[in-house]
Amino acid sequence: MRRTLKAAILGATGLVGIEYARMLSQHPYIKPAYLAGKGSVGKPYEEVVRWQTAGQVPKEVASMEVKPTDPKLMDDVDLIFSPLPQGAAGPVEEEFAKLGFPVISNSPDHRFDPDVPLLVPEINPHTVKLIDEQKKRRDWKGFIVTTPLCTAQGAAIPLAPIYMNFKMNGAFITTIQSLSGAGYPGIPSLDVVDNILPLGDAYDAKTIKEITRILSEARRAVNDPPMQEVSLAATTHRIATIHGHYEVTYVTFKEDTDAGKVREVLENFRGEPQELKLPTAPEKPIIVVDQDNRPQVYFDRWSGNPPGMSVVVGRVKQVNARTIRMVSLIHNTVRGAAGGGILAAELLVEKGYIE
Amino acid sequence: MRRTLKAAILGATGLVGIEYARMLSQHPYIKPAYLAGKGSVGKPYEEVVRWQTAGQVPKEVASMEVKPTDPKLMDDVDLIFSPLPQGAAGPVEEEFAKLGFPVISNSPDHRFDPDVPLLVPEINPHTVKLIDEQKKRRDWKGFIVTTPLCTAQGAAIPLAPIYMNFKMNGAFITTIQSLSGAGYPGIPSLDVVDNILPLGDAYDAKTIKEITRILSEARRAVNDPPMQEVSLAATTHRIATIHGHYEVTYVTFKEDTDAGKVREVLENFRGEPQELKLPTAPEKPIIVVDQDNRPQVYFDRWSGNPPGMSVVVGRVKQVNARTIRMVSLIHNTVRGAAGGGILAAELLVEKGYIE
Amino acid sequence: MRRTLKAAILGATGLVGIEYARMLSQHPYIKPAYLAGKGSVGKPYEEVVRWQTAGQVPKEVASMEVKPTDPKLMDDVDLIFSPLPQGAAGPVEEEFAKLGFPVISNSPDHRFDPDVPLLVPEINPHTVKLIDEQKKRRDWKGFIVTTPLCTAQGAAIPLAPIYMNFKMNGAFITTIQSLSGAGYPGIPSLDVVDNILPLGDAYDAKTIKEITRILSEARRAVNDPPMQEVSLAATTHRIATIHGHYEVTYVTFKEDTDAGKVREVLENFRGEPQELKLPTAPEKPIIVVDQDNRPQVYFDRWSGNPPGMSVVVGRVKQVNARTIRMVSLIHNTVRGAAGGGILAAELLVEKGYIE
Amino acid sequence: MRRTLKAAILGATGLVGIEYARMLSQHPYIKPAYLAGKGSVGKPYEEVVRWQTAGQVPKEVASMEVKPTDPKLMDDVDLIFSPLPQGAAGPVEEEFAKLGFPVISNSPDHRFDPDVPLLVPEINPHTVKLIDEQKKRRDWKGFIVTTPLCTAQGAAIPLAPIYMNFKMNGAFITTIQSLSGAGYPGIPSLDVVDNILPLGDAYDAKTIKEITRILSEARRAVNDPPMQEVSLAATTHRIATIHGHYEVTYVTFKEDTDAGKVREVLENFRGEPQELKLPTAPEKPIIVVDQDNRPQVYFDRWSGNPPGMSVVVGRVKQVNARTIRMVSLIHNTVRGAAGGGILAAELLVEKGYIE
Repeated sequence: MRRTLKAAILGATGLVGIEYARMLSQHPYIKPAYLAGKGSVGKPYEEVVRWQTAGQVPKEVASMEVKPTDPKLMDDVDLIFSPLPQGAAGPVEEEFAKLGFPVISNSPDHRFDPDVPLLVPEINPHTVKLIDEQKKRRDWKGFIVTTPLCTAQGAAIPLAPIYMNFKMNGAFITTIQSLSGAGYPGIPSLDVVDNILPLGDAYDAKTIKEITRILSEARRAVNDPPMQEVSLAATTHRIATIHGHYEVTYVTFKEDTDAGKVREVLENFRGEPQELKLPTAPEKPIIVVDQDNRPQVYFDRWSGNPPGMSVVVGRVKQVNARTIRMVSLIHNTVRGAAGGGILAAELLVEKGYIE
Repeated sequence: MRRTLKAAILGATGLVGIEYARMLSQHPYIKPAYLAGKGSVGKPYEEVVRWQTAGQVPKEVASMEVKPTDPKLMDDVDLIFSPLPQGAAGPVEEEFAKLGFPVISNSPDHRFDPDVPLLVPEINPHTVKLIDEQKKRRDWKGFIVTTPLCTAQGAAIPLAPIYMNFKMNGAFITTIQSLSGAGYPGIPSLDVVDNILPLGDAYDAKTIKEITRILSEARRAVNDPPMQEVSLAATTHRIATIHGHYEVTYVTFKEDTDAGKVREVLENFRGEPQELKLPTAPEKPIIVVDQDNRPQVYFDRWSGNPPGMSVVVGRVKQVNARTIRMVSLIHNTVRGAAGGGILAAELLVEKGYIE
Repeated sequence: MRRTLKAAILGATGLVGIEYARMLSQHPYIKPAYLAGKGSVGKPYEEVVRWQTAGQVPKEVASMEVKPTDPKLMDDVDLIFSPLPQGAAGPVEEEFAKLGFPVISNSPDHRFDPDVPLLVPEINPHTVKLIDEQKKRRDWKGFIVTTPLCTAQGAAIPLAPIYMNFKMNGAFITTIQSLSGAGYPGIPSLDVVDNILPLGDAYDAKTIKEITRILSEARRAVNDPPMQEVSLAATTHRIATIHGHYEVTYVTFKEDTDAGKVREVLENFRGEPQELKLPTAPEKPIIVVDQDNRPQVYFDRWSGNPPGMSVVVGRVKQVNARTIRMVSLIHNTVRGAAGGGILAAELLVEKGYIE
Repeated sequence: MRRTLKAAILGATGLVGIEYARMLSQHPYIKPAYLAGKGSVGKPYEEVVRWQTAGQVPKEVASMEVKPTDPKLMDDVDLIFSPLPQGAAGPVEEEFAKLGFPVISNSPDHRFDPDVPLLVPEINPHTVKLIDEQKKRRDWKGFIVTTPLCTAQGAAIPLAPIYMNFKMNGAFITTIQSLSGAGYPGIPSLDVVDNILPLGDAYDAKTIKEITRILSEARRAVNDPPMQEVSLAATTHRIATIHGHYEVTYVTFKEDTDAGKVREVLENFRGEPQELKLPTAPEKPIIVVDQDNRPQVYFDRWSGNPPGMSVVVGRVKQVNARTIRMVSLIHNTVRGAAGGGILAAELLVEKGYIE
């Protein structure tokens, strides 16, 4: 029987913080033990949190006091989940890692440090060994592991098995993303009522950059070399949905490729988390649906078990001999953030990086 | 000085009908003379119309009585605008054409009759000569001219000049469409609150079919043969915007193609309506914008002059040597329906088909 | 130990039907045994249902086949839940009652039959004795019990304890209701995007009529006579919220009345379901909140346990010596429909009307 | 012929600033001559403005350069319109007034200075004489005139004629307000998607406070004493509408009062702006509608001429002998802000305070 690990959630009242609180309240061995916040220190979590997710504030955390983001107060904490915002996250995460904490970060600040994993446990689990290098090079007792941008995961999770199994050439993505991805207060209401908000070149570019790294690390076997180069493009938007990033992807191939076989590969995709039966691993990382009006954000974003951990893929269709269209839907704050972070932690526990 | 033409608007209280009423109220020589409706016959237009567009009900039509769709009552009518729904439109339009009326239809029922033009005046004006064949073959005194599906026009209008000027290979389209395209009552609210509604395979297919015909008729010179075959795909959706279809298109080419040159071709595109200075022809059929957060539905759908007649194209960007991304926004009930219909009528007047 | 009762849900794929399916899947002794539908007969529930509520389709009902609304097929069914639409409900419910089934109806058709209870179990439980009269007069083996319009319950549940404890004079209500109250397809999207839809005189009137009956049956003791007459008004609207009716009520009194005491009465209100510890009875039928930005529809509609069974009341405030303002929020398809129906069934079981 | 006045618009790129720019571009004698902004100084107005209103940026202002809020640059400016935000407005407006500028302010900072008019030109035009006192007491060459909170105007404009003509006792108001009233970025989207946002006690209180002052200044004749005291309450909310504040008001009376007569008084209400035929005065300050599903925000907010200057009142109905219900809709950034400010300026010109 595994010993219980005590987790601190930084930014615990934020939109990803609440998903950590919700999911860890039901976790078999990682407990929410420390809720760090900013404006609300000293108050009961339940009183200050904006519970923009399913259900009600769990009793496990409801009356916990929100505390400062201060490692000196975290003596008995075993690991840190950090969904802090860009810029704020970087130095804080470094400080915790230096002091010996394992830090699972959903923030962009360290995503492209060459010795920091950008981990999607089903796709590039072998990258956890970067941690050894990271600790040595930086002379840290702890370490930082990052998870990718939710938008990048929504496309990359279905693209990875395609990339690994077919001679993929490129992917042209259009996203229709939800509001929760931008935090609170986040997107002004006047930007999304009777409107579509384009996220612009910088957001498009970072989406592509992250997908590119994830795919370059996707292997069929641990020692495989990186595979072919691909040409990616993303056009990103937000509209007035609360949770769930919806992404339309046209995938091109270097040779004739059959949509039926692509569909099969997607449906049968499993990764190390499934083999290891990690508690937060959904049975299927990708659920394929066949009705031509699905996935729909409202009805499918909580798919899988735990809810929200499976990416739903639909509309898999031959465009021409070398082009296939698919649509994917990811719960951005679950699989795309907190759930992905917890799954990463479980993998690290399994591999002995967190004890 | 051109004589005034009297127009009947069928379905005058519908979402396209109101745009006809609005635009014709300000037209230099086509007057709204007969407003045909169904449930509201005998009542003043103003009282029964749901004015889901800009401004207020124009005084020119406000107190006009809604009348039945009956050619016997239309003795002094010179032409018919028919935005009737699919199925209902077909036989009614035939009856009017047989009786000698020129019918401009926004309905799908006759769009693929081989002797009926599917007219976008800037792109395939030469197809009006199908009317001669139509009248002869059917032994009609009048005729039917159709305009394409709004969604198809939103992509086809910018694709046409690209197709005519570059060795285009294919186009992969994702649409985010507004509610007014589906009429009233149209889309149930529970389909689009906190949701995205996929329109499904049939809608995708008809979009492609219409774009294919339009491009195949796009020529640089009237006598040019049809150009290359292209591979098209569309993934169509509706969300909770009121007017304006937003479409992201990845265009692929058979040879290296420069986004800057594509942008230039789009910006400089003019058609016969511009040369003829037709009253409803916008100065530029395509307005190119360069900010990376435009076009936006709320702010750009009424672009051009008359408002809503220009398609706004933005985000024109090189993806790779042979792929370019662009975004287009069309006011679906104006350029994509009533405005397109009026422009078609003006072209037909100019060419002597309506007298 | 109570024996298990088998329930049929009529209109099981509708917006109230799904709440019955969800709640009964977790019920200690009432099981969802028969799912009746219309267009989807013969198909697995999961495949045809539009699951516009919390969570996913429960495994208890997911693969059940949808069947016709035919009593001959319901031999082993013990009770009927009928959220059928107005008009359709009436004759069907009568037929079932005649055949011996207890029918719990959320439909308006029999709400004002003088021998049919309009039951809110916390407020007028004594009206169940109308069943004896109903069965005798109509010579039925079964019976019909109705629950009130969700909108009426949202105001009546907090008004009842006020009415019973203070010399209430009148109540002036303004509702801002959600879309699910109108079913699916229900409200056209173009009615509620950038708009507020007034529900009109007839809806206002039926809301008042039902509140009036409920209050007239509210007693402190079973044998109390009806209390004072009150003057009620309601102005009802729908907007683009999915679930949750929000109602602002100004209550006037015949004598000086203290808001603090009203608040106390609301908070301490309990009814027979609480005394009997019925499984679907929330600990508190009314949860009073004190923050001046609550209740909020998104955050508070699932309040209570079972979730959605408590009405949340806030903003209780003295306007002047004889006027108090309060705001109430009811989950319209749970407490206002399916949950209220199940609670009614439990009361009827407890009182021996269902065996 | 009146000489042309040159106006500066402070905060010209804000949501009220754009309405000033739009309306003054068509004004017969007040011209938009100076557009003051903050982050966008030095750029063409058209390029930096977020045109969240009807039509497109008018050519009269499109290419004007945005300039700093600096009186030294405003030598040829005749009057100042100040829709600056609370706190920022106060000192700036004082500085301008001290330097001799007439300042029309839509900001709350000076609304309750005893020598500053809180002007609704149809209701309390006699309060302009406070300007004389203001200039003398403060030894200013210029002066400040304020207009009330949009929310307060939406209720006060119809309440004033009722107050003046009947023995009004109280008014219990529930507002459902639009997003533009809170400026940009303003309300976070996550507060209003599938939600209703209560504005809280402070907002309720300031609404009442302003209505109270306006009513206390409403007279049938200039020299009438203030009339009866009234008891007011407001419960204020925002939802996802873009423009238009919708308000439900229950009005109580000290004696039996007939709804038909109240309706008549509302319909026939005219004020000094109508008598003086001020250019921005709508023919009817209040337009009464009788359909039981009107007013609707989307369809009625631009009512009147100039569009948006009339308050639309509907649902006027007897609740009981001494209570009447009505609903009012005000275009918050037009009649409730910029349009009200321009009308105030016209009155001040007419009365010789601006020359």
